[in-house]
Amino acid sequence: MSRERVEAVRAMMRSKGWDAVVLTGNDPHNSEYSAPRWLQAGWVSGFSGEGDLVVTDDHAGIWTDTRYFIQASRQLPGTGVELHKTRVPGQVLIPEWLAAHFADYDSVIVAVDGLGMNAATVLDIKKAMGDKAIIVDAPNMLDPVWEGRPPVPQTPVITLGAETVGWSRTQKLTWIRKWLQDNGSDAILITALDEIAWMLNVRGQDVEYNPVVMSYLLVTRDDAHETEDSFYELTSDGVNIQDYSDIGVALSGIVDGEYISRLFVDTSTLNYNLYNILKENIPSSNLTSGKSPVALRKAVKNNVEIAGMREAHLEDGLAMERFFFWLERMVEAGEPVNEYEAALQLHSFRSGIEGFRGESFETISAYGPNAALPHYVTPESGSAELDARGLYLCDSGGQYLFGTTDITRTIPLGPCTQLEKEDYTLVLKGHIDLAKAVFPSGTAGCQIDALAREPLWASKRNFGHGTGHGVGFYLNVHEGPQDIRQNFNRQPLVPGMITSNEPGIYREGKYGIRHENLVLCVDDGRNDFGQWCRFETLTLCHLDTSIVIKELLDASEIDWLNAYNAKVFQTLSPRLPSEIAQWLRNKTLPI
Amino acid sequence: MSRERVEAVRAMMRSKGWDAVVLTGNDPHNSEYSAPRWLQAGWVSGFSGEGDLVVTDDHAGIWTDTRYFIQASRQLPGTGVELHKTRVPGQVLIPEWLAAHFADYDSVIVAVDGLGMNAATVLDIKKAMGDKAIIVDAPNMLDPVWEGRPPVPQTPVITLGAETVGWSRTQKLTWIRKWLQDNGSDAILITALDEIAWMLNVRGQDVEYNPVVMSYLLVTRDDAHETEDSFYELTSDGVNIQDYSDIGVALSGIVDGEYISRLFVDTSTLNYNLYNILKENIPSSNLTSGKSPVALRKAVKNNVEIAGMREAHLEDGLAMERFFFWLERMVEAGEPVNEYEAALQLHSFRSGIEGFRGESFETISAYGPNAALPHYVTPESGSAELDARGLYLCDSGGQYLFGTTDITRTIPLGPCTQLEKEDYTLVLKGHIDLAKAVFPSGTAGCQIDALAREPLWASKRNFGHGTGHGVGFYLNVHEGPQDIRQNFNRQPLVPGMITSNEPGIYREGKYGIRHENLVLCVDDGRNDFGQWCRFETLTLCHLDTSIVIKELLDASEIDWLNAYNAKVFQTLSPRLPSEIAQWLRNKTLPI
Repeated sequence: MSRERVEAVRAMMRSKGWDAVVLTGNDPHNSEYSAPRWLQAGWVSGFSGEGDLVVTDDHAGIWTDTRYFIQASRQLPGTGVELHKTRVPGQVLIPEWLAAHFADYDSVIVAVDGLGMNAATVLDIKKAMGDKAIIVDAPNMLDPVWEGRPPVPQTPVITLGAETVGWSRTQKLTWIRKWLQDNGSDAILITALDEIAWMLNVRGQDVEYNPVVMSYLLVTRDDAHETEDSFYELTSDGVNIQDYSDIGVALSGIVDGEYISRLFVDTSTLNYNLYNILKENIPSSNLTSGKSPVALRKAVKNNVEIAGMREAHLEDGLAMERFFFWLERMVEAGEPVNEYEAALQLHSFRSGIEGFRGESFETISAYGPNAALPHYVTPESGSAELDARGLYLCDSGGQYLFGTTDITRTIPLGPCTQLEKEDYTLVLKGHIDLAKAVFPSGTAGCQIDALAREPLWASKRNFGHGTGHGVGFYLNVHEGPQDIRQNFNRQPLVPGMITSNEPGIYREGKYGIRHENLVLCVDDGRNDFGQWCRFETLTLCHLDTSIVIKELLDASEIDWLNAYNAKVFQTLSPRLPSEIAQWLRNKTLPI
Repeated sequence: MSRERVEAVRAMMRSKGWDAVVLTGNDPHNSEYSAPRWLQAGWVSGFSGEGDLVVTDDHAGIWTDTRYFIQASRQLPGTGVELHKTRVPGQVLIPEWLAAHFADYDSVIVAVDGLGMNAATVLDIKKAMGDKAIIVDAPNMLDPVWEGRPPVPQTPVITLGAETVGWSRTQKLTWIRKWLQDNGSDAILITALDEIAWMLNVRGQDVEYNPVVMSYLLVTRDDAHETEDSFYELTSDGVNIQDYSDIGVALSGIVDGEYISRLFVDTSTLNYNLYNILKENIPSSNLTSGKSPVALRKAVKNNVEIAGMREAHLEDGLAMERFFFWLERMVEAGEPVNEYEAALQLHSFRSGIEGFRGESFETISAYGPNAALPHYVTPESGSAELDARGLYLCDSGGQYLFGTTDITRTIPLGPCTQLEKEDYTLVLKGHIDLAKAVFPSGTAGCQIDALAREPLWASKRNFGHGTGHGVGFYLNVHEGPQDIRQNFNRQPLVPGMITSNEPGIYREGKYGIRHENLVLCVDDGRNDFGQWCRFETLTLCHLDTSIVIKELLDASEIDWLNAYNAKVFQTLSPRLPSEIAQWLRNKTLPI
């Protein structure tokens, strides 16, 4: 089927006179997850991972990274589409590949779907190929050949009141208009879906796991113009609504210097198609690009949002404890249960919570060697059976009307090796060291990431992912601008930000371990040495101590662990059936 | 006297038609320490700290930072020169001050000594004042009014053989010519004095503490041109020598496109005067500026340099132990000794070492509250008497023909308070945690700085300086490109780099504590998780354990401390008089 689709693309290329076509799986907002409509590279190639597609007359290739090599090597054979590996030494990325492939050409027409790419990506192609490249922006080019292509999703939109989110829509609009004034801009075009959902206090289910609404939002400084200049799939509060697909036409009509002359955009989420429309209608000097101010404002939760997140973690923790109680019984009784069934059971516990809106990402339910795969996808059929030995890792989270959760627990299902126990304890030690860190106001995540790693580093162990990512309030489970990782992100951790704390270790072919809680950055007062911050752990679910090697923890780490488990028991047990409460008491006894 | 000097400057301004004069205390290479000739702002104003001077018809001011406010408030009254505070909230820097002062003028002539400023500094003035500013570069403008102005220093130059520095001059020239080729440049003008000293394996005493030679070095790709194109105060090895003061004339003759067209410069150490000469002679497109490659190459010591540094630390450690033995006897016996006398005594012990060439910076000998001052200068007369109580801090280092040292010890002279003991122990805990850190290859200092701080942060204590700076091989005690501090310097710590490890704590009006050793970054092998590095401590001088609160250290920290002191005893005691060796045995007993 993929072979036919590639040929259909080639037929289109011949009829249009194009030399190459570049397609991605990105939606027009560069979202982490795309609705099915935008999975264009996947539709053509049959490859279901994240990747970009290039088709020429004599070649078709998918560019993807290490996470998807195995998947690609299973899905691509027979399609005529070849795998190009990225994030490996000697990688040849699409721009360079195109330049080399067409080295002998004087002129090359490269067609892109500008809705699925941001300007920087297209610029890279131009830069690599030089003057010979003619870029044709052909949005929705697949429409004629993709029969039954899914439409732009349009799920019911709900509005959250100020009692749930703290800031009303009016407050948020007032705030951003003040920002526009300070920034010397007339308007801002907000293109990131979670930023729009935050600004307008709306949520939808247009994208899996991310409760956003497909939309663009234009906010002008002048209230009077708002009704004409704002686009949103919703009627209320002086926000004018126009059709999502009309954004290009509408923008070219409005951004003409009469209503708006100086426009601010965030090019990281602005697609090439809209970028070109803006370029055609606004002199460069009036188009300012930078980091959207909404990202930081959204990341710093207010007290109402924080209260909601606490509630979400309480409910989520109850579901997690029910799940682990159930799982332990099943395994002890020798009842057959596989990874996928376990994930379903966890889903069923979460589903019982009022306000549950779905998972915040696809549950990673991974036993033994499967947990060592960085991005394991638990298969619906044929997933691994859980045995009464070794380690089981479960990374999951829920979307609730009042918050978002993300939690990983790794638990022993029976006897474990000495190395498993050591690794388990050292990852926990790193988790605890970060959780109990105190740090000066203004400290960025990259400046304290080593606190979570040094316990592993000391015996030359490490993990290859970040230690922490921002988490939205009933919004995306991954959000910026802060993070905790080995980069040079200067964004300080600010009181109100919620970030994950998730060190791990992965031993290929053996097992994987990760301990993840969400932590809230809180103000810890001022003294002679300055202003201080610390973390408060939000997640409520016991950390298994049965395989902890106590000698590897120091007194303050043991204190933290015992206090955490005691708090979990105290908070959750009154709301659990007595049998589970009793089980939890044993799980949370001090070591 | 300063009043007259300011007037002399004003008379010159009137005769030349200048509206303002800006002078600094920087030498033409933006060195950390300037020879007396370049202390122009100080000569005019009478202020002996680091600061920049602006003189207009109706105002004269010194701009300096927090470190020098007290000093300035003592030295400036009566001079007619006012203090402008920098690094404080609401600071008005020179460019903005000039812009405001001359707001009503249509045209303003600002004269600068372009030898004492780099291009960026002058550009800032231009930017703030706009088109109205006419910058006149008047190098050595003070010559007519500064009677007896010191000449450019010209001390004897020594050459170090490859047996001392590892790489011969020829090897270094070959290396940098290869770099020029890879970088697409015809030549590099090296302007940083320590880089030139390293390149040519020469040392002088032109600048206090820094064993450099006032010079510029031009290296071309083509060997044949070298004899014509390189400037150095020395005859040998195909290096052509021209007079230091002729650099401008010589450059404008050579850099004409015939011999050199594409020239590389490092603008951080290139002065405005030379920058202008280059601008006039080379099209901008042929002038490349960036970080000089010599800085990184110089920072990564080779095995011969490392062996020399080990030897320097052995000798320096013997002097330190003799000093502390002497000091303890003096204080115990109730003999009067003050901070300055203590520093002199330490100097005398170091002077006894063969190959000693002077201190690597001015010794900070500080007792009690004086140690809490960030940049205490021990006064020649009237320094504090040492009593048999509280803490004494000594930060010092030596320049030896075979290496450079930098060590701080804080020792109790008698009874200490609980807070002193706690602070002492927590600073030591941070020092140890950094000293024993293992980290992945590629890690930058800012990514592990928190390891030295978290033991203090945990109880909301901190220190306001960096934890570590690079140290040269018989060269500047402060060198880049690496450091260990709360910045976002991406330079990884590379095996061969030598950096200080010096956490501290300062309590105003009470005391200061700092524990400083130099550490060598070493390769620690490769495993499944990647390539590893760790530190090896070079400094050899016992860490006093008498006021350590053992409960604040964990087992691995105690092990490190005991092992370090044992190593100090084992290495140094055979070379010390038996009385001191016996004393040292007691000082280094395990806790």
